[in-house]
Amino acid sequence: MSNPTAAMIVIGDEILSGRTRDSNMHHLAGQLTEAGIDLQEVRMIGDVRETIIGAVQAMSATYDYVFTSGGIGPTHDDITADCIAAAFGVSIDVRDDARAVLAEHYAKSGTELNTARLRMARIPAGADLIDNPVSAAPGFKLENVHVMAGVPSVFTAMVASVLPTLTGGAPLISKTLRIERGEGDIAGPLGALADAFPLLSMGSYPFQKDGKYGAHIVIRGNDVDQIDDALAQLEAAFS
Amino acid sequence: MSNPTAAMIVIGDEILSGRTRDSNMHHLAGQLTEAGIDLQEVRMIGDVRETIIGAVQAMSATYDYVFTSGGIGPTHDDITADCIAAAFGVSIDVRDDARAVLAEHYAKSGTELNTARLRMARIPAGADLIDNPVSAAPGFKLENVHVMAGVPSVFTAMVASVLPTLTGGAPLISKTLRIERGEGDIAGPLGALADAFPLLSMGSYPFQKDGKYGAHIVIRGNDVDQIDDALAQLEAAFS
Repeated sequence: MSNPTAAMIVIGDEILSGRTRDSNMHHLAGQLTEAGIDLQEVRMIGDVRETIIGAVQAMSATYDYVFTSGGIGPTHDDITADCIAAAFGVSIDVRDDARAVLAEHYAKSGTELNTARLRMARIPAGADLIDNPVSAAPGFKLENVHVMAGVPSVFTAMVASVLPTLTGGAPLISKTLRIERGEGDIAGPLGALADAFPLLSMGSYPFQKDGKYGAHIVIRGNDVDQIDDALAQLEAAFS
Repeated sequence: MSNPTAAMIVIGDEILSGRTRDSNMHHLAGQLTEAGIDLQEVRMIGDVRETIIGAVQAMSATYDYVFTSGGIGPTHDDITADCIAAAFGVSIDVRDDARAVLAEHYAKSGTELNTARLRMARIPAGADLIDNPVSAAPGFKLENVHVMAGVPSVFTAMVASVLPTLTGGAPLISKTLRIERGEGDIAGPLGALADAFPLLSMGSYPFQKDGKYGAHIVIRGNDVDQIDDALAQLEAAFS
C-alpha cells in the first residue's frame, strides 16, 4: 500500500517577482514527510484568478491532499478564497462562525471590524474552518483542499492545526551516508545498489565545503532493515 | 507590448521531501524581474520521468522561456537530460563538444573521465551548451528550455551565462511604502487606488516586528511616473 499523496500551491506575485523568498513550501514538505504523506508537486503561481482556479481543480483531482498558502488577507489582491469557491462551484459569503472569531479577536484590541477585515470571514459554503491562533483570521478546508495564510508564522500554526486531521501513511525513513569521493566515482556502485533495492529510493547530493568535497547519499524507504542493509553495502564499497 | 513570460521547473526528490531547501527559484525570480521577464509559474517535481516530460512539454508550449534546475549530475537519479530529449522527440548521446569540456577539466586534477562522469556529456541533439565555470559539466538549451544544475553555486553561474542571451522587456519597476497600520485599515484606500491605476499592480505584505505592525505596500509597473503618482496618493491617505 502506498502512502497518501499531496500537492501544494503557493500563491502570490511577491514570490514570483523575487521580492519575497517563500519558506512555507520547505516547512510543509518536512512536516508531510514525517507524517508519511508524499508531497509530489508544488506549483507557485501569481494572484491571477483563472490560474488559481485551474491549479486548484487540476491538483485537487490528482492528489489526496492539496495545501495552499497565500491570498487570504483583507486587501484587494487577496483573491484565494473566492477562487477556491469558484473552483468547486460553491457560493461564498461572510459566514457567522468566521465573523464571530474575528469579532472576538478585534474586540480585545478595540479595533474596528470594518468591511476590509470582514473579507477575511468570507468562507466558501460547506468548508470547515482552520484555526489561526496567531492572528485569528481562519483558514479553511473545502473538499481535499486546505487553504492557509502566506505569512509564515500563521502558515506554520495552521499546518499544526491541520496535521492531526490527516491520514498519514508509513513514515518515510531516510538515512544518509557521507562519502568524500567525487560523485563520478560514487555513481557506478550507487546505480548498481539502486537496481538491487527497487523499493528504496537513493539520491546523491554533492557538497563542496572547507576544501573537502563528496556527496551525501540519501536512502529512503519504509523498511528500515532494507535501508540498513543497503547502507552497509554502500559503506563497504567505499571503505 | 507586454514582457516575455517565463516558467521554472525545479526537479528533485530532495526538495519535495524537505531534505533540501531550494534557493534557485528565488535567485532566478530576482534576476528575471531585473531583466524585464515575467516569471509566471514555478513547478517543483520529483525525479519521475513521465512527470518531468509532461511539465517540460506543457510549460515550453505556454511560456516564452523555461528554466530547469536539478538532475544533470552523474548518478542514476540524474534523468533530466534524457527527459528533455524525450520531451522534444530528439536523440541523446555523449557529444564531442561536451566530452571535450569534461576531459579538459578532469585532466587538470588527474581524475578519470569514467562512464558515470561521461553521462554528464550526454546532450540532446540540437541543443546549445551552457557554460559552467564552477565544475565544467555543462547545462544546455534546447528550443526555449534552459537546463541547469541544481547545486546553487553552479545554477547561479549558469544563470549568469544565460541571461545575456535572453530578450528582456521593460524592467519591472517596484516601489515600496511602509505603513504602520493594520492591513484592515489599509485595504479600503488601497483597493480604490488599485482601481484608479489599472496598469499598476499593488500588493500588501503585512509585517509584525519589534512590537510594531503594519504592511509594506508594493506598487509595480513599467511607468515610473504612474508609480510615483500612486505612491504619493497612498502616502497622503495615511498621513
